[in-house]
Amino acid sequence: MQFASPDALDRARRVKLMLFDVDGVLTDGNLWYSPSGEEIKAFHSLDGLGLQLLSKSGVHVGLLSGRASPAVAIRGAQLGVQHVVQGSQDKRQSYERLLKKLKLDRDETGFMGDDLVDVPVLLRCGFACTTHEAPEDVRKRAHHVAATPSGSGAAREVCEYIMRAQGTLRHVIAWYLR
Amino acid sequence: MQFASPDALDRARRVKLMLFDVDGVLTDGNLWYSPSGEEIKAFHSLDGLGLQLLSKSGVHVGLLSGRASPAVAIRGAQLGVQHVVQGSQDKRQSYERLLKKLKLDRDETGFMGDDLVDVPVLLRCGFACTTHEAPEDVRKRAHHVAATPSGSGAAREVCEYIMRAQGTLRHVIAWYLR
Amino acid sequence: MQFASPDALDRARRVKLMLFDVDGVLTDGNLWYSPSGEEIKAFHSLDGLGLQLLSKSGVHVGLLSGRASPAVAIRGAQLGVQHVVQGSQDKRQSYERLLKKLKLDRDETGFMGDDLVDVPVLLRCGFACTTHEAPEDVRKRAHHVAATPSGSGAAREVCEYIMRAQGTLRHVIAWYLR
Amino acid sequence: MQFASPDALDRARRVKLMLFDVDGVLTDGNLWYSPSGEEIKAFHSLDGLGLQLLSKSGVHVGLLSGRASPAVAIRGAQLGVQHVVQGSQDKRQSYERLLKKLKLDRDETGFMGDDLVDVPVLLRCGFACTTHEAPEDVRKRAHHVAATPSGSGAAREVCEYIMRAQGTLRHVIAWYLR
Repeated sequence: MQFASPDALDRARRVKLMLFDVDGVLTDGNLWYSPSGEEIKAFHSLDGLGLQLLSKSGVHVGLLSGRASPAVAIRGAQLGVQHVVQGSQDKRQSYERLLKKLKLDRDETGFMGDDLVDVPVLLRCGFACTTHEAPEDVRKRAHHVAATPSGSGAAREVCEYIMRAQGTLRHVIAWYLR
Repeated sequence: MQFASPDALDRARRVKLMLFDVDGVLTDGNLWYSPSGEEIKAFHSLDGLGLQLLSKSGVHVGLLSGRASPAVAIRGAQLGVQHVVQGSQDKRQSYERLLKKLKLDRDETGFMGDDLVDVPVLLRCGFACTTHEAPEDVRKRAHHVAATPSGSGAAREVCEYIMRAQGTLRHVIAWYLR
Repeated sequence: MQFASPDALDRARRVKLMLFDVDGVLTDGNLWYSPSGEEIKAFHSLDGLGLQLLSKSGVHVGLLSGRASPAVAIRGAQLGVQHVVQGSQDKRQSYERLLKKLKLDRDETGFMGDDLVDVPVLLRCGFACTTHEAPEDVRKRAHHVAATPSGSGAAREVCEYIMRAQGTLRHVIAWYLR
Repeated sequence: MQFASPDALDRARRVKLMLFDVDGVLTDGNLWYSPSGEEIKAFHSLDGLGLQLLSKSGVHVGLLSGRASPAVAIRGAQLGVQHVVQGSQDKRQSYERLLKKLKLDRDETGFMGDDLVDVPVLLRCGFACTTHEAPEDVRKRAHHVAATPSGSGAAREVCEYIMRAQGTLRHVIAWYLR
């Protein structure tokens, strides 16, 4: 079941930049290794449209990953994601740098992450999201825990939640419902 | 659980052309990315035979995908799918064009899609099908929602539903039951 | 839940050759397509040991697949499978030919298949097995329906069932339990 | 549900070397085969951090696999795993050799394995762990059976269990919770 803290809607309403971790958030956490050391990742079509709609609604979208993988750059570019930070050894630092660059306050930012390395950013951003597969130490620090499985629409659920909070969802999807 | 609107059987009975979206319908929505940017897709053997049987029963079968991927062309050819439309920026337009070409009325067509980009066609075709993993905005516009998971037989379920409605299923599979 | 017909144990006891379909039985039915048309399959380690143990117990093991894929030949060779028949257009014919070659009666053979193309052999062999994901038209013709998901141990379950029926399981696994 | 024998915490407390089987423990047991015979494996990000944290807590971490695969060497190196034994024909022998080399007693070692080939080591090590997908003959010989699915955090669960038993978990993850 989806969990949302009492102030989750208020927090989602203020988001101008939404960042997503990659492994375990935009994927189900699986890392495929070929014998030549290639790393293959699986992204989900529902999440892809979610990120595109959120961006179309006026929210900046970014990826913030501890690992570095060409697949992430390719997927990010296909979806028109504005900010792609990879190979981040210290996500807190990467996050603070991005905030400064974009001249945003912390409470104007959201982040969805699924493991301990994401907690420093979850503790600082305005709207902290995670997956229901995340460890308890992560889940109990989030304002929103997605009900949809990670890598199968968990990020889409968060995108729609933000657009619903900001009152932009109906407008953004109206084109499709004609 | 399978959901079917009260008139779903009637609608399925009239179908002469059945179109399927690819990602999230013939697959579970996952898009595998290799480091070199190759996109790998997983299709299901149950769906494959479903499309072949439906075609054998006399219904035209087609794929209508927003993305473009060599894997789809290969899979379509292997299954003897008559119509493969890929990279469709506007599925409604692609759908109308195909109708004109085949001289079919809207209510002689069915479509199975799983996301907002599919709704314009779902709203126009005679028999609108989707998956139970689809967003609510899609599901509530469908005449039939498959109970079988997408990418694991959801399309097969729809194929058998149509053949049962048209009274062709027993005949088509009789060969196998000798 | 595992289903077994009242005479399933008796039937399993007589098996001297056990054949397995590949897609949907030794795999979960997914066929991965790379852009270059390569077909990738996923086999399961539990099934692998199952086939090896069954073979060690004295039962001949074979693969009988309608598709043709280098991956199947490789996997079969790794597991020491004695009979690998691929690209079979008519499984009944392939089955009858193998029987003649091995001088076996039908009731000395078992087969595990998951779709309509497998039914002709399921109807003829002594011990007919399938998966719980198989269509009802297949399931109702089987003596044994595996409870374990296909591609995650369904074939292992059948291998152990046969060895238990034949009283060889304890002996075959004794080496591991020292 | 997680199962732990009454003495599991005591046993976990003494572990100085924790070994993990690969297929079915660090993966869900699936082995992807490409047509050229390449073998692809999927590891999980949650397990990856688990092994790193356990190592950071002072416990030696190792992989003990019956198969040989370049992907395992790559993944092991990425995670800084100290001991990687592959292609082990006899896991008991490989285990005894490692013990001698590291001058450790059996009850200072733990092992997580999921199939019959792992039982000889499970019967000898101090802390025997397995997955809930493992066959009953394996599960009933383990002190700890993970509740999290194999290849999706089962190994992480065991890593946290050991660190909790040894009182090191809070300290190791404190850095992330600032």
